[in-house]
Amino acid sequence: MRLYLLPAPLSRKAPYWAYPLWAEVAKSLQHFFVERAARVRFLLEKTGVSAEAALYEYDPVRGDWPWEAYEKVFTQRAAAGLLTEAGLPGVADPGWSVVRRAHAEGYTVLPLAGPSSITLALAASGLAGQRFTFWGYPPIEKKARRQFLQHLYRAARDHTQILMETPARSPQLLQELKETAPPTLLLCVAHRLTEEEGFVRTYPVSQWPPLTLPKGPTLFLMGV
Amino acid sequence: MRLYLLPAPLSRKAPYWAYPLWAEVAKSLQHFFVERAARVRFLLEKTGVSAEAALYEYDPVRGDWPWEAYEKVFTQRAAAGLLTEAGLPGVADPGWSVVRRAHAEGYTVLPLAGPSSITLALAASGLAGQRFTFWGYPPIEKKARRQFLQHLYRAARDHTQILMETPARSPQLLQELKETAPPTLLLCVAHRLTEEEGFVRTYPVSQWPPLTLPKGPTLFLMGV
Repeated sequence: MRLYLLPAPLSRKAPYWAYPLWAEVAKSLQHFFVERAARVRFLLEKTGVSAEAALYEYDPVRGDWPWEAYEKVFTQRAAAGLLTEAGLPGVADPGWSVVRRAHAEGYTVLPLAGPSSITLALAASGLAGQRFTFWGYPPIEKKARRQFLQHLYRAARDHTQILMETPARSPQLLQELKETAPPTLLLCVAHRLTEEEGFVRTYPVSQWPPLTLPKGPTLFLMGV
Repeated sequence: MRLYLLPAPLSRKAPYWAYPLWAEVAKSLQHFFVERAARVRFLLEKTGVSAEAALYEYDPVRGDWPWEAYEKVFTQRAAAGLLTEAGLPGVADPGWSVVRRAHAEGYTVLPLAGPSSITLALAASGLAGQRFTFWGYPPIEKKARRQFLQHLYRAARDHTQILMETPARSPQLLQELKETAPPTLLLCVAHRLTEEEGFVRTYPVSQWPPLTLPKGPTLFLMGV
């Protein structure tokens, strides 16, 4: 009757991070809801989770979880784990719908501490962390994207604004922000967080040095 | 020339959590900017940080950091650590201004992963984690507080809304939310996260069971 939320590292190349508690909890479980088995199997193996443990994988094509497996586990009142691709399950990923159902069925939800790219980027940005908004990805379509960014520039006066971009489109977004944001706005780029080649840099838009951002997971933050 | 952001546990009573990397980094440092020395000294001792290490404490009365210590450390280009009361430094605390200055002076900012009550509560809420806004504390004054909460009820339709309340005022805020929020709104209470007596519960406002919330650090989340 317990659903454990097991955080995953942001990158396989991150320094070893699995906490004693994480391994202890994971080893006690036989059922795991996972966003992508290929991404988390190494972690489970590393921490000594039984090879017999069942992994129920999210289906990105249908955009849904295997609820039949879910029914079975939850009917048995068995303990289960939830693991998504990177970071905290349920934050900027499809994990939240498993958690919602667990609440509805009276399960105790136990989140384990671990990395979240959103709060790590905010901590390292030097932008005010008292109020902030996370938006996920910006729209792709040109007009909607322009309007969205303009909204963020205004909103950044009161709340630090955080968005992410796909590895492939990150260099283009940095260029767009440098070209369209107010010159005094503070713009932070958090690239490949927790990796050796990662960095977090914050400058006013007008002072951003020329930089060819390599492709990679990147968050963009704006504030005053 | 490195400023390390060292997360602190959310509670002293939390299960042991300090990561191998945390201790390794902390032991290599001689200078720490800390929100409250009394709160973090046990952690530094536990991880074997030298008793000679200097702790520069935030002054909550002046509402500022000891910038003269800061100047000294940063003029020497010495590595330093930043530790606030609980969670990730710079997120919902005064740590961000040290980080901002580090960026301005060309320091490399390196955030270490650790717990943040905000993302832990979001993960465990079962509310959508794709878009969310964190507000800090609600206003105390009656009229401003009512308007603020009404704004949140509307905003919760698109973005999960997150706020915190002081331990003493948390029971009262839960009562207010139950009395004034739309009956179908999903309301999550995340109380004493990571502690043995902690819990996270989510129900529609109309179905919230009677509960005398004990005093303690609590986050409130709303969504649809």
